[in-house]
Amino acid sequence: MSNANDYSIILQNRVLVDVNINPMSQKRYIELEQPSLQNNQADVDRLVDVLQKWYPDLSVPLPLMNKISDILRKSDWRVTVTVARLGLTWQLIDIEPGNVVSRQLGLAFDIGTTTVVGYLVDLLTGQVIDMAADFNGQVIYGADILTRIYLAGTVEGRLQLQQAVVGTLNNIVERLASKQGVEGSAISAVTVGANSTMVHLLLGLDPSRICMAPYIPVVNLPGYISASAIELAVNPLAPLYCLPSVGSYVGGDIVAGILAGGLHKKPDLALFVDIGTNGEMVLGNNEWLVACSGAAGPALEGGVARDGMRAEPGAVFQVKIDPETWDTSYKTIGGQKALGICGSGLVDCLAELLLAGIIDRAGKFRDGKKEFVVVPAAASATKKDIAFTQIDINNIMRTKGAVNAALEVLLESVGCQMADISTFYAAGAFGQYLDLESAITIGLYPDLPRERMIRLGNSSGEGARLVLLSEESRLEAEQIARNITYFELNANEVFMNKFVGSKFLPHTNLDYYPTVKEKMSQRGLLRD
Amino acid sequence: MSNANDYSIILQNRVLVDVNINPMSQKRYIELEQPSLQNNQADVDRLVDVLQKWYPDLSVPLPLMNKISDILRKSDWRVTVTVARLGLTWQLIDIEPGNVVSRQLGLAFDIGTTTVVGYLVDLLTGQVIDMAADFNGQVIYGADILTRIYLAGTVEGRLQLQQAVVGTLNNIVERLASKQGVEGSAISAVTVGANSTMVHLLLGLDPSRICMAPYIPVVNLPGYISASAIELAVNPLAPLYCLPSVGSYVGGDIVAGILAGGLHKKPDLALFVDIGTNGEMVLGNNEWLVACSGAAGPALEGGVARDGMRAEPGAVFQVKIDPETWDTSYKTIGGQKALGICGSGLVDCLAELLLAGIIDRAGKFRDGKKEFVVVPAAASATKKDIAFTQIDINNIMRTKGAVNAALEVLLESVGCQMADISTFYAAGAFGQYLDLESAITIGLYPDLPRERMIRLGNSSGEGARLVLLSEESRLEAEQIARNITYFELNANEVFMNKFVGSKFLPHTNLDYYPTVKEKMSQRGLLRD
Repeated sequence: MSNANDYSIILQNRVLVDVNINPMSQKRYIELEQPSLQNNQADVDRLVDVLQKWYPDLSVPLPLMNKISDILRKSDWRVTVTVARLGLTWQLIDIEPGNVVSRQLGLAFDIGTTTVVGYLVDLLTGQVIDMAADFNGQVIYGADILTRIYLAGTVEGRLQLQQAVVGTLNNIVERLASKQGVEGSAISAVTVGANSTMVHLLLGLDPSRICMAPYIPVVNLPGYISASAIELAVNPLAPLYCLPSVGSYVGGDIVAGILAGGLHKKPDLALFVDIGTNGEMVLGNNEWLVACSGAAGPALEGGVARDGMRAEPGAVFQVKIDPETWDTSYKTIGGQKALGICGSGLVDCLAELLLAGIIDRAGKFRDGKKEFVVVPAAASATKKDIAFTQIDINNIMRTKGAVNAALEVLLESVGCQMADISTFYAAGAFGQYLDLESAITIGLYPDLPRERMIRLGNSSGEGARLVLLSEESRLEAEQIARNITYFELNANEVFMNKFVGSKFLPHTNLDYYPTVKEKMSQRGLLRD
Repeated sequence: MSNANDYSIILQNRVLVDVNINPMSQKRYIELEQPSLQNNQADVDRLVDVLQKWYPDLSVPLPLMNKISDILRKSDWRVTVTVARLGLTWQLIDIEPGNVVSRQLGLAFDIGTTTVVGYLVDLLTGQVIDMAADFNGQVIYGADILTRIYLAGTVEGRLQLQQAVVGTLNNIVERLASKQGVEGSAISAVTVGANSTMVHLLLGLDPSRICMAPYIPVVNLPGYISASAIELAVNPLAPLYCLPSVGSYVGGDIVAGILAGGLHKKPDLALFVDIGTNGEMVLGNNEWLVACSGAAGPALEGGVARDGMRAEPGAVFQVKIDPETWDTSYKTIGGQKALGICGSGLVDCLAELLLAGIIDRAGKFRDGKKEFVVVPAAASATKKDIAFTQIDINNIMRTKGAVNAALEVLLESVGCQMADISTFYAAGAFGQYLDLESAITIGLYPDLPRERMIRLGNSSGEGARLVLLSEESRLEAEQIARNITYFELNANEVFMNKFVGSKFLPHTNLDYYPTVKEKMSQRGLLRD
């Protein structure tokens, strides 16, 4: 059933994943014998009989049966069928006249709390034909996830939130399809990488117990759902498959990331970190995987900094401070006048302030100041100073302290040490734009040889694409979700102790960060 | 997965069928471990994990997921689940609080062109709890099947006819359920024995090609359909399974009959005859089955006789003529004054006229009369003579001639002779009420030792019940449908020749009918 094609994910010259293309939906051109008195098999059975040799136990949904009779006759018994997986079996989901096997479209979504990205995928080659992104329509009901969970406590609220996100998805479908000159119904399979709450809201499931101990979702592994069940504007019979979650706080987006990074297949110890609105971390190899999560994100995404903002036009995303002169240079998204600082800019600020000796390893301004002006009022779009304050520093250090502490809990839980980590994977949009050196300098990322640090980009969308393309990958995703051991940090005493102890830059134990130690030492910053 | 119970069909002291009960839907009582921080599996996955050991690849439809979370908590994690077959796998279709495994209801329908019968079945014991019958709501759109096929040529007509028969089914569901004090939704599986056209109209499929050469139905083997797809008022997720058809003119009702008679499992040659509106005949054993059909019914059902009527109150259903005095006695349905003669009465008339010497073996009145008065005007409800006319005789003889010819074509096609037939099965309501001796006398049924002639009654409904109760039987039904070789008589020259030749009572070759020959000889009727 494989198309003999290969699809690989190659990043930084490494082959991360290499799969045979064997997609969730497939087309096949069939020429049938015409019926006669001597060969009077029924239309549907005639078609199924021929298809059985490739798709055993193929079922045909009632709404397609009349269409089969019509199309067979209109097309002189030469048709292209689309079949899709349904658990272990297959279902016929479309029939078209003539030979149209060359166009086989699937759609992989990354549904984030804030942003939704859709990738239109050629199911024959595995390549992304086009992509489109949009804000998650649920944002108008609350930017943060807890507000939405609360709203979804009522049936009406749940429906509103479902309609909002489905509206966003359908907008993306419409844009992608019309650019290709096809109807949305030409899309025959849909996969979703999203956190557990987003999956619940997409499917109309009650998420209220996700945020209450013992944090029990309705479902982690929803399996195949008909696109029509949530009124997705693709082929109504198309399978909709959400990557399985591990639990309330390690969702299908993280499982997708592991899958796209391929760390579940390699014997060396790897660390996977996705710092978005929530922060998740997975440690492991081809034998075991442990994970934890925490609400780490807002500080790093600019959400809680005084002059913080989302990564939108006008956001300062890169900051450099001359260690000698303290002259500051910066770049803004879109090159516009600065409006504020986004996450990667904040991390740059903290790292550059440390390396310039403006703040000490405890994150305190050495001269007792309360802030560092990045963009003076005269140059900013707001006509006010855009600055990085002591409170901002404290917030980010708390976040990075939580990340450090979580990593140490994970390492201790499996009897490993920081130095045992062979490869580091940074996932998510934040991981994509963050300056690697800055992230290491502040101790957010571990200090590993740089060639062993891989930015996965939108690994949630990439994992969704893999599952769309390869049944083997889908089964792997379910295996990953089952195999990950989740550590609940909220009630973990060891974590609290580590957290309290992680109050230095880049880390209490500077020996964990040899390159940062070297830089600071060169600049004479370690004499105090 | 078997309930270890046995279910048998026993008729005339013979065990026809003996199956292990392993029904299409099943209930199971489950006590789940409560979730905790240490055991934080999602609700649906927690349930599925436990059920997997009995039902591998169990899927859970989206609409049930929120309900699972609710019911699990409301019932202290002790629930009864209902699962149903879906091809090779299983689907969860209901969840109820507490232990309610003792009530497991399925519904087997016989959907005839005229009458619909529903059997409410206890899926634990296999017994019929109750039954209900009603006229097929489609009758108002046309008593005969061709009118309905014509009407179904448009989408609107098809919808009208579908709604009519579904309305009849839902009426029966409502009556059966309310008598048991349950909702229709307590019914968790539905099976249907019906001819191919009735199945098409039930499912909203276009039947127009059924009556045009080369007679190709949309589907013979529709497989599992959700009850909700046709708005059946049972559990919306209940599987609806129509017994498979062989082709346009040998439907699921006949396959059901073979299944209920068990002739597909016995090495001896058997003949199965179902004379209803259409007449179907199957010949074979455990190695092969051949079938044919023809529009044989109307004459025998009273539809084309001058004073013929359906088997309703006031119909003469039994006639005796004293061979000496020609005194005539009769019985009417309900004991009312006679309104007309129904099918079994017409067959009695023809047989009794022959045995009394009133007509000859060619079916001609010996005294040149044109009719025989069964009920004189003075005694009838119509105040007119109710009579059996020469034209009626000719009609019935044509019908029985077609039956004879068909049987001979079948026998010749497999190189067998009348004498090789070991057992004869008479199916259908007509077969149930017909006088066996009269049917043999006119040559409609073969002249076999009477203990080898079995009346199956409503074998369409009985077969539907078997398929509801036993997966083995369902697979057998599909095997029967696949294995039957259909002989198209319409274009068959041998049939036409035999038909023209079959113009004597009981048969051109009297030696095929030894007991009839003996009776006629005793009465001195063979001297001419």
